[in-house]
Amino acid sequence: MKQSDLSHLVQPFHVMELVKQANAMEAQGKPVIHLSIGEPDFPMPQPVQQALIKAVAENQTRYTAALGLPELREAISTYYRTAFQVTVPAQQIVITSGASTALMYACLALINPGQEVMLADPGYPCNKTFVQMASGIPRFVQTREENNFQPSWDELAREWKPHTAGVLLASPNNPTGTQLSITAMKDIVQGVTDRGGFTIIDEIYQSLCYDSAAQSVLQITGAPSAQWPLVVINSFSKYFGMTGLRLGWMVVPDSLVPAIERLAQNLNICPNTPTQWAALACFQSDSLNICEERRQTFKARRDFLLQALPTAGIEIQSTPDSAFYIYAKAPFDSERFCRELLEKALVCTVPGKDFSEHRGGAMLRFSYANSMHNLELAVERIRRFNLQT
Amino acid sequence: MKQSDLSHLVQPFHVMELVKQANAMEAQGKPVIHLSIGEPDFPMPQPVQQALIKAVAENQTRYTAALGLPELREAISTYYRTAFQVTVPAQQIVITSGASTALMYACLALINPGQEVMLADPGYPCNKTFVQMASGIPRFVQTREENNFQPSWDELAREWKPHTAGVLLASPNNPTGTQLSITAMKDIVQGVTDRGGFTIIDEIYQSLCYDSAAQSVLQITGAPSAQWPLVVINSFSKYFGMTGLRLGWMVVPDSLVPAIERLAQNLNICPNTPTQWAALACFQSDSLNICEERRQTFKARRDFLLQALPTAGIEIQSTPDSAFYIYAKAPFDSERFCRELLEKALVCTVPGKDFSEHRGGAMLRFSYANSMHNLELAVERIRRFNLQT
Repeated sequence: MKQSDLSHLVQPFHVMELVKQANAMEAQGKPVIHLSIGEPDFPMPQPVQQALIKAVAENQTRYTAALGLPELREAISTYYRTAFQVTVPAQQIVITSGASTALMYACLALINPGQEVMLADPGYPCNKTFVQMASGIPRFVQTREENNFQPSWDELAREWKPHTAGVLLASPNNPTGTQLSITAMKDIVQGVTDRGGFTIIDEIYQSLCYDSAAQSVLQITGAPSAQWPLVVINSFSKYFGMTGLRLGWMVVPDSLVPAIERLAQNLNICPNTPTQWAALACFQSDSLNICEERRQTFKARRDFLLQALPTAGIEIQSTPDSAFYIYAKAPFDSERFCRELLEKALVCTVPGKDFSEHRGGAMLRFSYANSMHNLELAVERIRRFNLQT
Repeated sequence: MKQSDLSHLVQPFHVMELVKQANAMEAQGKPVIHLSIGEPDFPMPQPVQQALIKAVAENQTRYTAALGLPELREAISTYYRTAFQVTVPAQQIVITSGASTALMYACLALINPGQEVMLADPGYPCNKTFVQMASGIPRFVQTREENNFQPSWDELAREWKPHTAGVLLASPNNPTGTQLSITAMKDIVQGVTDRGGFTIIDEIYQSLCYDSAAQSVLQITGAPSAQWPLVVINSFSKYFGMTGLRLGWMVVPDSLVPAIERLAQNLNICPNTPTQWAALACFQSDSLNICEERRQTFKARRDFLLQALPTAGIEIQSTPDSAFYIYAKAPFDSERFCRELLEKALVCTVPGKDFSEHRGGAMLRFSYANSMHNLELAVERIRRFNLQT
């Protein structure tokens, strides 16, 4: 069957081979510890679970409006006001089937064929695919470890071309677990806007941060507008532990809402209905308290790994302060290191290749979405492995 | 904010204006009868609802494999064997976030920029958008009422061009409620294959048919293969009453699975997890019995409308034998007719514009996803309205 050029362009996740190997080893009874996984080891908060069961029991299972449940758009608007002190009208908030669908709508609505979109290297591997599916060209901007692998406006400006349409950045970022500072964010949004481009900021790990209060680019700009041509992407997956429920949202300028509505009507119809009803419970204080406790748990794990990994022979130069990842130097070629660490020490980590073509071979990603007990065990195994190699 | 050319190309659903007006009238207390709606008036079968509650209660809410839950792929494979007597290996079945996402993957994997894809006119309005999002060009093929608004291979062959990539058809079709005959289907798949093109067949209304057994193109071809470059789209939305749960599937040749897996990993991650677990219960005999009862209910409504609408001044020349739609001639310009019918007779129907540029003004769609009582009332109102105009 003849396949499209795009189908060949889209990269597989190289880590999947390693994960398959790890699963096969586990099936043989080997106690592999996963520091590989990009989803919280917590389920959704119990009040949200109860709300989901209630929605299903009440047959809240018909299509909703394409832009999402009005009540949920209102609840997110209120959340921005109470948690971030910013005013974002509900009509500028669009509920999506996960951040993935939000990224898709943003790219389809903003990129013309052949236009470049700047992405930070390292970054989330799928971002380039969303650009490519809109027939855009991903342009990777190399970041520096001393800048926590986040770009500055100067670095972006140097790569700006007449056919650059905008930038797509994540803060906190995956795989680095680092954020853009408010100053850097401000410079970038201002710089991109001055050049007539768009800024898409992925904030899906927003409230999982450990050294300062959670932040949003919207605290700089207020709601997106003609003045601030900005799209913010968010998700219920990470902070609210709802990965497999596939629910996210985006914040867009008023002028973009009709285009997003047309795309949503045509390409998706609506996000999962009972999940939308359940997500209303995320913003209740009992749910938020559970999420806050979990954030503290993640912080303790981050603190432990930041201190312990270097003693086990893993070098960390950046300051991971968010998400649940640590991006570190591999002692030798990261693909070989991760494979051998899995086979000989039963610890599954992610080599850098998926996140960066540039420095993928040198780096690896640790996820701390695992228990403190397992993290301690894993560090011990890594220490012994590094002593033997 | 600068928007892409695609965002301007994508059409809104014109019917939404009418539906908004109907909703506003209902909010004022006016008893509008909706014959406008493209979703069953039944919820999911109770065993499926229970299975969904169980999956949520058991925290089955983490990511699944991108291609979907292996158990569900197996269950669908078994369903093809038992209900349609065709062998479709589970590894050729991909679970998707509704048929929408399946159509997206198919178009992205198969269409190159500038290639034409043939669509039947009238048809589902979003099909052209999926082609357009893949930078393809939708080419509408006019169908004839005496052929139940389904194309023949001769009609398609006449429009085939060097840059035609394939055809995308639906059987049963929306808005017409008509199917392709097995003979016509056979000729089309053979003809398209001989020209080196692909055939995508949307079978989302498959088991909702009233004059003969449910059919699948796979009964002609067996599982898609190098010999039969075919993609079949299906959904849990209509027959199983799971519209707002957004779950569907696609059947593809073996050779296409890796490309679809890469697209799914990158663009969607996975379909909603608890819904995938719940969908397993769709194929239990208790659920299938409920669905069969509902099919009988739909059949009775179809029989009633087919007999009653002509007596109320609505001309029907095709034989709607499937889905839950009747496509009929509007007594005068369909947009004006539908608006006046809503305002004066409180019956909401869908003008043809969304489904066909060619004959949209002449036709309208009735949905019988409403109770027999309401259908009887609606016909009476239409009769009175037609007498007065």
